[in-house]
Parts: sequence; structure tokens; C-alpha cells
Amino acid sequence: MIGTTVQELLLENQDNFLVPAENVASLLYSNPLDHALLVLSKVGYSKIPVLDKDDRFVGLIGLNDIVGKMIDLRKIDTDNLAGLTVADVMEIGVDYARDDADLEDILHLLVNNAFLPIVNSERIFVGIITRKEVLKATNHLVHELEKRYSLVEKAEKKKDKLFVI
Amino acid sequence: MIGTTVQELLLENQDNFLVPAENVASLLYSNPLDHALLVLSKVGYSKIPVLDKDDRFVGLIGLNDIVGKMIDLRKIDTDNLAGLTVADVMEIGVDYARDDADLEDILHLLVNNAFLPIVNSERIFVGIITRKEVLKATNHLVHELEKRYSLVEKAEKKKDKLFVI
Repeated sequence: MIGTTVQELLLENQDNFLVPAENVASLLYSNPLDHALLVLSKVGYSKIPVLDKDDRFVGLIGLNDIVGKMIDLRKIDTDNLAGLTVADVMEIGVDYARDDADLEDILHLLVNNAFLPIVNSERIFVGIITRKEVLKATNHLVHELEKRYSLVEKAEKKKDKLFVI
Repeated sequence: MIGTTVQELLLENQDNFLVPAENVASLLYSNPLDHALLVLSKVGYSKIPVLDKDDRFVGLIGLNDIVGKMIDLRKIDTDNLAGLTVADVMEIGVDYARDDADLEDILHLLVNNAFLPIVNSERIFVGIITRKEVLKATNHLVHELEKRYSLVEKAEKKKDKLFVI
């Protein structure tokens, strides 16, 4: 459970952490891999979301996945990409969250994901939440907390337990 | 300024956020690019540190930098890599921090960097601090804070000012 004061401070400078879909580079699962390679080399992100033709989130793709296909027994060959599409190399079964998820769940998932695809109830991709945005809010929280509040230690329950045992 | 209680809570489960150099994949600036491409495609990180032969931190390199060199007017050709080394495409002038830096400075730099190379006073690379490690600590902080402490609002100084003006 995240306390209400802490949650308020975390979200004080932003309604939520979402980077909306229109500001996120993505690929269609049917895009050819050489196109995907071009897009990924330009956007500067290591992975981007893959969508179906109805904007539903289906997976992630990164330069890693494509370069991996190009490397065949220590020989690098772009011919290996011929005929392949994003769908052939993308990661599926990745972590994502609903747009009504608790902040607590989002924070947990971000420990193991640099960003989290966010979808609505119809699995339509609505944007991403990044560690970067959470870091900004963490900075705000840790700077403001003891400026605005005195922290008064609560009675320690662990010590009571010692007498019970 | 980060208050002492908040800083203690952030660092309660770890001495610091450092991932030590021996656990971080890195490249030598003189490594050929096709080797760098192989390493980067295996490690699963989008960027890794580049060191000189004395283990001094000199820059960063990512798949992006290499694939960018392979792409020539919408044509992808690994021949473009021939004769190039890491030094030819790595990013220099990147953010990094000394191993005695304040937590406050580290947190600020991590807003714009997925990880931060950490060096000692002789610029020897000692490891990295990642957003992931900070996120873990943020989770700990936001869960424990209101469990252990009552937050008592301090007298608001802004309101006093209204009377002065």
C-alpha cells in the first residue's frame, strides 16, 4: 500500500505518468524488418511497441531482435532479413498494464521494464509509462517530503511482538 | 536537499545503487565494430560503456550507433562497417558521476540517462548506477514511509508571506 500523502506528492506535477500514444514511435506487426531496422535506428529507443492494424498492442521489438536475425555463426548478413516482418522477431507475452492500473502495480512492473505499454479495456494501445517519468516524480518526492512534513516515528509494533513470543 | 530520513529509507536495502564494473558488459575503444555488434546483440542492453586500455571510462556505444553506420540512403550494408572501430561511432561527452557523488546529483542525472557510468578519482570505471536500482528503492520508500512515520504538515511559510506583502 502506498500512503495517500506519498502518492499525492509523487503525482503532484503530473496527472499520471503516461506518455500518450501519439508521442510514442511504434511499428505494425506486418512491417518488413528492413523498415523496422530503419525506424529503430532513428528513434533512439532500444525497444518500441508493436501494434496490430486496429492499434492493439501485440508486443515489443528492438534493434537487438533484428540484429540477432542478421547474425549467423559470427557472420553478419543483412540478406537474412529478406522476407521477414516485425511479427517474426518481436517479443510477445511482455508486461503491460491497463490504463486504470494502481500506481503500486505500475511501480512494481517498472523495476523489470524500462517502460510499460499501457492499453485500454479493448487492448488499444494508449501510450507508455517510462522509468524516466517516475524518476522525475521520485526527485520531486524526495526533495519536498521533509521540507513540507515532519516525520514522526510510529509506535514500533515489532518490539511488542517480542513479548508475545 | 534530500532529508536524512528519506535518504536512509531509499538506501535501506542497499549500501548504494552501484552495479560493480565486473558485472557490467563493456567494450574497448579499439574493438572492431563487427565485434561490438556481436557483443551488443548478446548483452541485451541498448548501450554499454566504452573503456580505454587502462579501464578509464571514455564513452558509450549502442546498437543504434552501429546500425546507423550500416544504413546508407535506405540501403543496409554491413560492408560499411569494414575498418571501423568502437572509437569511430561511440558517444563521447556523456553524463557520468564520481563514486563520491551526492545521491541528489545521481537522481537528477538519471532523469535523462537510463544508467550512469561511475568512475573513481582517476576516471577508472567502477560500475554503473541504473534507473532500475533506483526504482527498487523508490518502491521500498513509498511502501514503508507512511507505515513507519506519521507525516505532520509543517507550518506553511507561504501564507506568512502574504501578510508581509
